[in-house]
Amino acid sequence: MSPPLTPLAVSLGDPSGIGPEVVAKCWDSRRAMGLPVFVAVGDPRSLSAVWDGPLAVITDPREAEDAFAHGLPLLAVPAAGAGVPGEPTTAGAHCSLDSLELAVGLARSGSCAGVVTGPVSKYQLYGIGFSHPGQTEFVAERCGVSPSNVVMMLAGPTLRTVPVTTHLALADVPAALTQGLIEARARATLRGLQRNFGLPNPRLAVAGLNPHSGEHGALGREEIDLIAPAIEALRAEGWDVTGPHPADTMFHTSARARYDAALCMYHDQALIPLKALHFEEGVNLTLGLPIVRTAPDHGTAFDIAGQDRADPRALAAAIRMAASSARHRAAYACA
Amino acid sequence: MSPPLTPLAVSLGDPSGIGPEVVAKCWDSRRAMGLPVFVAVGDPRSLSAVWDGPLAVITDPREAEDAFAHGLPLLAVPAAGAGVPGEPTTAGAHCSLDSLELAVGLARSGSCAGVVTGPVSKYQLYGIGFSHPGQTEFVAERCGVSPSNVVMMLAGPTLRTVPVTTHLALADVPAALTQGLIEARARATLRGLQRNFGLPNPRLAVAGLNPHSGEHGALGREEIDLIAPAIEALRAEGWDVTGPHPADTMFHTSARARYDAALCMYHDQALIPLKALHFEEGVNLTLGLPIVRTAPDHGTAFDIAGQDRADPRALAAAIRMAASSARHRAAYACA
Repeated sequence: MSPPLTPLAVSLGDPSGIGPEVVAKCWDSRRAMGLPVFVAVGDPRSLSAVWDGPLAVITDPREAEDAFAHGLPLLAVPAAGAGVPGEPTTAGAHCSLDSLELAVGLARSGSCAGVVTGPVSKYQLYGIGFSHPGQTEFVAERCGVSPSNVVMMLAGPTLRTVPVTTHLALADVPAALTQGLIEARARATLRGLQRNFGLPNPRLAVAGLNPHSGEHGALGREEIDLIAPAIEALRAEGWDVTGPHPADTMFHTSARARYDAALCMYHDQALIPLKALHFEEGVNLTLGLPIVRTAPDHGTAFDIAGQDRADPRALAAAIRMAASSARHRAAYACA
Repeated sequence: MSPPLTPLAVSLGDPSGIGPEVVAKCWDSRRAMGLPVFVAVGDPRSLSAVWDGPLAVITDPREAEDAFAHGLPLLAVPAAGAGVPGEPTTAGAHCSLDSLELAVGLARSGSCAGVVTGPVSKYQLYGIGFSHPGQTEFVAERCGVSPSNVVMMLAGPTLRTVPVTTHLALADVPAALTQGLIEARARATLRGLQRNFGLPNPRLAVAGLNPHSGEHGALGREEIDLIAPAIEALRAEGWDVTGPHPADTMFHTSARARYDAALCMYHDQALIPLKALHFEEGVNLTLGLPIVRTAPDHGTAFDIAGQDRADPRALAAAIRMAASSARHRAAYACA
């Protein structure tokens, strides 16, 4: 498989967060980390505030490949005012949204092979009227896909998880779960494993919602009423799906060896094991989109921004996974 | 610190589960695993069905020390009928409850240094009218302590977690959380760390309930309304308490180094990281009791019972932790 000919677009995220720093560090270590050509998208001052390496401001992604050898290629999205690392502003929130929008547009048009999104502050975005739960739903809308048909997969070296519900208060989770939603997320996950990971016969393990998977209904009935019927329906379609499994016994080494992805009922059920095991290398991959989209599985970390303490390994893993997904998708489309 | 002079009582749990097998394996490997003297409590036939080692049936725990060198000491609680490994019965459920009751009584009377409880089937126990959510609440009642004043701690080599709520359907968790309950669980945890682990100035990290700890209220208000005020109250008392922390970023290596225990809002928030990291060695320790009580952090595993496949390491860790807790408590009482 040859690498994609077009670069990956990497949005810097909030200019006051650690996004610019980890993007710059990835370019610095591009050879050691085995990274393909990428172009940063965001405010050039957010990079120069935390990094004194060479910036290669370009205006067309086609310039990225030549530029990449001697500087970090950047498509500039200037913020309205220079920000300070660690101090988020409204102008920075607008810049992070504009950068995301441009990066997604480049991937949609085919000018970039995929998009890797840097960390944004949802709190800041909500303050400027952002009405999506997170970047994933925004990307879905821009791609013309219903958010209910895309899934957020968290992937590390030995575990992939997918939450059925995402950025919801825990109290709202049970009412949000339906058999149809569980099935839709499962199908998108299974197809995503085929398409993005080159797994022709993917194995999916489905978690219960309640402690001990409800103990036969004594600790909640969602397993009986919603989750088991969804699993039955998926198995009837020929998919390799097991469960509902008690969530606390799904994530140790030998359990993880039995599936290619775990379908979880809520955000922390999916994120806690992934980050406990793979904090430094966790990747967020959106399945079900017409484009490749990954992200490092960490936040803006305003508390350490500008201190040269941010770890670029998760972003590097996200960039590598975007490249490998693009290759698998190209192979899948040709198969 | 000298070891306790009295043996630990180890209930076999459900006679058709893996409890008898792992107890026998612990006796077999008592020297390699560094185990103190213990006496099994349960049905002798459940042991002989899965093990051909020497059984030393005794009638008084004081006989255990001498017997331990050449056989597994057992206080017999015969079930009404011989069971079959992997096939739970009503008679087995009664036997598991009677064994638990006797073991707890021996610890309460001082005849045993503490109790280690083997795995029971809650489903089977509910079927014979057991009205407690789990063994922990039963032990608390037998010790004359309100279940709201005891806490279940899950402990592994690099992580200790405590759930504020335990065996509840997830939908019932938000309504069950109160500031007072969070504070009570936190205080019992902090005092338990002092008393059972010899930590004079314990550090407690408190998790949020919602994704991202509620994102300033956008994803739920429990952090603002309940959890943060509880933390404030505890800090005003002089305790070293931090949070509320987003649950998904509390459990990686460097985060775990910052606290001695994590206070979690619900069962799986506490159990998922513990078992993901320490599945083979997880111990359940009950804090706030007048007696020492630990348990291996696994279930009856009926599916592998009688096949010589059960791993005794968690039970061995539970026995060792019971012994070390008994020593720390003796030292604490004398301080």
